[in-house]
Amino acid sequence: MALVGAVGAAAPVKVVALCGSLRKCSYNRGLIRSAIEMSQGDIEGLQIEHVDIASLPMLNTDLEEEGRFPVEVEAFRRKILEADSVLFASPEYNFSVSAPMKNALDWASRPPNVWGGKAAAIVSAGGLLGGGRGQFHLRDIGVFLDLHFLNKPEFFLNAFEPPPKFNPDNGDLLDEDVKLRLKHVLLSLKAFTLQLQPKT
Amino acid sequence: MALVGAVGAAAPVKVVALCGSLRKCSYNRGLIRSAIEMSQGDIEGLQIEHVDIASLPMLNTDLEEEGRFPVEVEAFRRKILEADSVLFASPEYNFSVSAPMKNALDWASRPPNVWGGKAAAIVSAGGLLGGGRGQFHLRDIGVFLDLHFLNKPEFFLNAFEPPPKFNPDNGDLLDEDVKLRLKHVLLSLKAFTLQLQPKT
Amino acid sequence: MALVGAVGAAAPVKVVALCGSLRKCSYNRGLIRSAIEMSQGDIEGLQIEHVDIASLPMLNTDLEEEGRFPVEVEAFRRKILEADSVLFASPEYNFSVSAPMKNALDWASRPPNVWGGKAAAIVSAGGLLGGGRGQFHLRDIGVFLDLHFLNKPEFFLNAFEPPPKFNPDNGDLLDEDVKLRLKHVLLSLKAFTLQLQPKT
Amino acid sequence: MALVGAVGAAAPVKVVALCGSLRKCSYNRGLIRSAIEMSQGDIEGLQIEHVDIASLPMLNTDLEEEGRFPVEVEAFRRKILEADSVLFASPEYNFSVSAPMKNALDWASRPPNVWGGKAAAIVSAGGLLGGGRGQFHLRDIGVFLDLHFLNKPEFFLNAFEPPPKFNPDNGDLLDEDVKLRLKHVLLSLKAFTLQLQPKT
Repeated sequence: MALVGAVGAAAPVKVVALCGSLRKCSYNRGLIRSAIEMSQGDIEGLQIEHVDIASLPMLNTDLEEEGRFPVEVEAFRRKILEADSVLFASPEYNFSVSAPMKNALDWASRPPNVWGGKAAAIVSAGGLLGGGRGQFHLRDIGVFLDLHFLNKPEFFLNAFEPPPKFNPDNGDLLDEDVKLRLKHVLLSLKAFTLQLQPKT
Repeated sequence: MALVGAVGAAAPVKVVALCGSLRKCSYNRGLIRSAIEMSQGDIEGLQIEHVDIASLPMLNTDLEEEGRFPVEVEAFRRKILEADSVLFASPEYNFSVSAPMKNALDWASRPPNVWGGKAAAIVSAGGLLGGGRGQFHLRDIGVFLDLHFLNKPEFFLNAFEPPPKFNPDNGDLLDEDVKLRLKHVLLSLKAFTLQLQPKT
Repeated sequence: MALVGAVGAAAPVKVVALCGSLRKCSYNRGLIRSAIEMSQGDIEGLQIEHVDIASLPMLNTDLEEEGRFPVEVEAFRRKILEADSVLFASPEYNFSVSAPMKNALDWASRPPNVWGGKAAAIVSAGGLLGGGRGQFHLRDIGVFLDLHFLNKPEFFLNAFEPPPKFNPDNGDLLDEDVKLRLKHVLLSLKAFTLQLQPKT
Repeated sequence: MALVGAVGAAAPVKVVALCGSLRKCSYNRGLIRSAIEMSQGDIEGLQIEHVDIASLPMLNTDLEEEGRFPVEVEAFRRKILEADSVLFASPEYNFSVSAPMKNALDWASRPPNVWGGKAAAIVSAGGLLGGGRGQFHLRDIGVFLDLHFLNKPEFFLNAFEPPPKFNPDNGDLLDEDVKLRLKHVLLSLKAFTLQLQPKT
């Protein structure tokens, strides 16, 4: 859980951003870079940190020893614990979340679950429907994790429809309309995170 | 696709069995061992091979080079390709499939998809509802993979309700009633696999 | 949206309760009766009204005329609009919500959507897994409606496992342990509804 | 179950087509009209009958008396029983199937379930993603009903993207490319139905 006491009027909302694709030039990774840029620009009160999930070992509870997790898992869980909310950049693979994303979700859910009570938003870029179906699996998973997902605006994006949305050489988001939509998600996530915080 | 030509009246139905848990004493792994035993016993015409998915690298399409997959992935895909049907021993983690299972599903779906047209059955052991909800995610994923899942009998099992179902020290299935239910699944999978084969 | 201004420290949380079964002796209807009793007893600050959905016509948008709905639909939509949150007593039919429940959900979603932003809880009684799978469909539907579902505690109940949970002659909830679990849901719904309300 | 004995080499595959929208000018109804036209044209061996579900009463098992269903329900169940396969023209309402469709699904599932073992295909027209998400709920429901859904080709259609796909005044399908896609579904459904039939 976030250190709620430290989130006063002035403290920024702390967001952890996770990318479900490990590709170097991932478009979903590009969405996160763009989001971070916005949070350092004209969106106030939002601090986004990308946390890499590539180094997490594949889930195997035999790796847990006396309540201790592998060192990369411990570090990852601490990042989640300290965040107020989560931004999932979640590509759709075969109508569901990617294996790396599921792996991250499961490691941080091991008792004690560190997701509980946080606000969350999902953004997806991909082919076909752009990820609009895989997001439901992430939402289902979030029930047990006790995540509260933003309902609106939904954000999924067919990355391959003209005009070009991303730079294929590095995954950078290029399209200004999409940036506006992404900004709308971030503002809504910030507002929803504050809404969920205890009244003082 | 299975070498259909080789599956004559006498050739056994070839089943690949995959376990979504990497735990050494996994109960789901125990279900597979029990299924293999039955196929070597009084179930005729069914040949089940357990294929380990622990060694597959985490999905990252950057690892594909000129249409070639990493060597473990190539070997895994060949096993799937040569099978007539698939037995998924799929534990439920947070209402969905495990990351190792999703990883295996995704690797074998990379073009050319090697799952297409095969029959499949799901068995699950776990806590709470025993996996009855995570199976739906696997079915959703199977739509894009073009798998045909057995609808009945469903098989999910609360492993912790008395009497003891498994030996916790090695994951072996102990319960005779559960073995009968598992046998029913295997017979149905065999019949459904044959039903889906082209008429000659 | 609820008349938030009217919900001060003293005003009770207004909950609309809907039952997805039209059976006279429905167990899910029994859950609602029990919930209402509790809200009139020792749970303070919670006011639950059961709204019958049996009289709603089957959804057909041809029945809408110049932005007006059939009279039963208008009355139903007003009830939803005036509530702070929603208690769904939702039996599982074939792994999904019942047709009467889906009908109610859809009518109140017609523009302007009257569900938006409300808190919601789901309780289910039935056979087999007791409704634990159909609740996910209701949650999926709630994304578009912009409902915020309670994640915990989950409440689904196999109504037929001994000891007897309900009086089959009228659907009344008998079991004291189940009543406690239901009370826990109501208290959580009340707290979550207040949590979602704007800070003043 | 279909009267399999009557489906010899020469007998056509009998398909029941159901439309989830009750609107007079429903585009999904238009898909069915177009499908029937094709089955009477150059698609051989396929006989499609549209069965109206508007007259079914809202599901309430109190309406069942001594194993008898209301007369409209009895007639509907007989139609399903006599068919070899099912074509669902299923609009997406709030990410799920419509209430009239759920109602039809549930009535015909009451014991004895008359859907069991049949092949099925889903086509959808609508706004946004065109119904691509609601189809998964229909597939989930089909598990308990023991329906075998076609996996490919998927058919969902944004009805409002230019060029015009339907005549808004009567719901007739106009677009030739879409007709080709629909034809592909029908041919696949025919082949899959025959594939599932017992070998003689």
